[in-house]
Amino acid sequence: MCKRKESFFFRLYSGESLCKKCFVGSIEAKVRASIAKYHMFNFDDRIAVAVSGGKDSTSLLHILAKMERLHPKASLVAVTVDEGIKGYRGEALSIAAANCKTLGIEHHVVSFKELYGFTLDEIVARAQRKGERELTSCAYCGVLRRRALNVAARDVGADKIATAHTLDDEVQTILLNIFRGDILRLAKEKPVTDEVHPRFVRKVKPFCEIPEKESALYAYVKKIKVQDAPCPYASEALRNDVRVMLNRMEEKHAGTKFTVFKSIERIRPALDEIAKKADFKECIECGEPASSDLCKACEMLRQIG
Amino acid sequence: MCKRKESFFFRLYSGESLCKKCFVGSIEAKVRASIAKYHMFNFDDRIAVAVSGGKDSTSLLHILAKMERLHPKASLVAVTVDEGIKGYRGEALSIAAANCKTLGIEHHVVSFKELYGFTLDEIVARAQRKGERELTSCAYCGVLRRRALNVAARDVGADKIATAHTLDDEVQTILLNIFRGDILRLAKEKPVTDEVHPRFVRKVKPFCEIPEKESALYAYVKKIKVQDAPCPYASEALRNDVRVMLNRMEEKHAGTKFTVFKSIERIRPALDEIAKKADFKECIECGEPASSDLCKACEMLRQIG
Repeated sequence: MCKRKESFFFRLYSGESLCKKCFVGSIEAKVRASIAKYHMFNFDDRIAVAVSGGKDSTSLLHILAKMERLHPKASLVAVTVDEGIKGYRGEALSIAAANCKTLGIEHHVVSFKELYGFTLDEIVARAQRKGERELTSCAYCGVLRRRALNVAARDVGADKIATAHTLDDEVQTILLNIFRGDILRLAKEKPVTDEVHPRFVRKVKPFCEIPEKESALYAYVKKIKVQDAPCPYASEALRNDVRVMLNRMEEKHAGTKFTVFKSIERIRPALDEIAKKADFKECIECGEPASSDLCKACEMLRQIG
Repeated sequence: MCKRKESFFFRLYSGESLCKKCFVGSIEAKVRASIAKYHMFNFDDRIAVAVSGGKDSTSLLHILAKMERLHPKASLVAVTVDEGIKGYRGEALSIAAANCKTLGIEHHVVSFKELYGFTLDEIVARAQRKGERELTSCAYCGVLRRRALNVAARDVGADKIATAHTLDDEVQTILLNIFRGDILRLAKEKPVTDEVHPRFVRKVKPFCEIPEKESALYAYVKKIKVQDAPCPYASEALRNDVRVMLNRMEEKHAGTKFTVFKSIERIRPALDEIAKKADFKECIECGEPASSDLCKACEMLRQIG
């Protein structure tokens, strides 16, 4: 418990009352603890940090940059995916670049346009013209961004991709997968993804035990420049419902999000057995690893092509 | 799809539009299907049906009575637990008795007073006087009712206890256990409980795939006499929140409850491995099977004694 007089943040689920300095220290300590607990990094890893320019990923970049100074054999590189969203991504890109410059970190940008021939704006417009009703813009973006990140991380020779998924993101995804009945996905999404294919760069989530509210507060306290505007396409109806429900539960029963996260970690060995059964081939179109003959990204591009 | 003109019930999650007769038939067929799928009964089982007098358990009694006529070697006995709740349980008891009489089914009543020396009203009053704040009345009732049902089922020589837990109850319990981090309980609660101890009568849930709304509608259509009044003690705050949240999700995304149920059934083999590790001893006080030296029921009775 912080002994300074002025309390800046009251952490309801733990009962801690923290001043600004202790709050910042506690976030950094929690991230270090998650990294250690889940064996996220090797001492000499080249780490691609997925930076969008938003509060979570920019906070993560700053924390990893600070940690990396203590590990001379490790190296960091920031990777940003430019989906091509007019009036939104441009600002985020320059914020991401400015943060990298301040921290002295190499910055690598990969765009949907150069990878797939279309920006997300163009993909969404084409899908609409084709009368596509099943897939939301978030569905396209999710698949194509995941692919882009993997390609970019491989291009820069990274051993790991660090993403800024927070406790909230993780718990939402857990419940979403249960609500959707997607057990394979429930099994595959975890703090450190398995090594399933040599062309897949493993993903790690150092913020998996940091509530979103606290990662935002970290950026605010540290006066980190971030993009505030939400994505204009945000359209995941079910995820939104789950988010609202979880926030309501957390408000009434502090610690709920942590408990859900831990519940799933307790059945992790069983889920790992399920994940092991997943098979990987190579996509007949692009050669990237895929769970069926045609990878999800190529399937989508064919649909709108 | 029913071809009669007047549609009485539209089943949103399946798209079926049913007349009254088809609705009744569909519920009975679904119950038969669940019983077969989960191997709930043997052809010569003596089945204790837990009947409270409410809509779910009374509907179940009627459906099982109808099915039992086709299985001459099987037998049914209704078991009602009288917790001792003034102004509530009395009416329920006479409704349960009346239904048993109509159906020609033996009715066995067991009371908290005779088993534990106290009614639930007395237990709640004593707990309040002792300043007990952790445990709600539902917590006492849940543990003591489960024990009472088991004792009663053994007394009448039953091979199985059939309870009227609906799809809603099951899915609420699944999410509650995840929200509370109680994975052992998540593993143990299922359509047919394991044979863990010779003194535990196995429990089966023939309504596990029937939404609560439909079991209530069944009672209404069949003009079955049931108790409508809710229990005056209903105080499970977290369960209530989960119920409201699930109903909201179901309204927006029809079929959510089924999907959650099926998600957990898909990881059932893994959960079974967890459940297997649970150890049973005999309670030093009452000799009933328990997970620690003192069973939960005796622990509670000591606290308020």
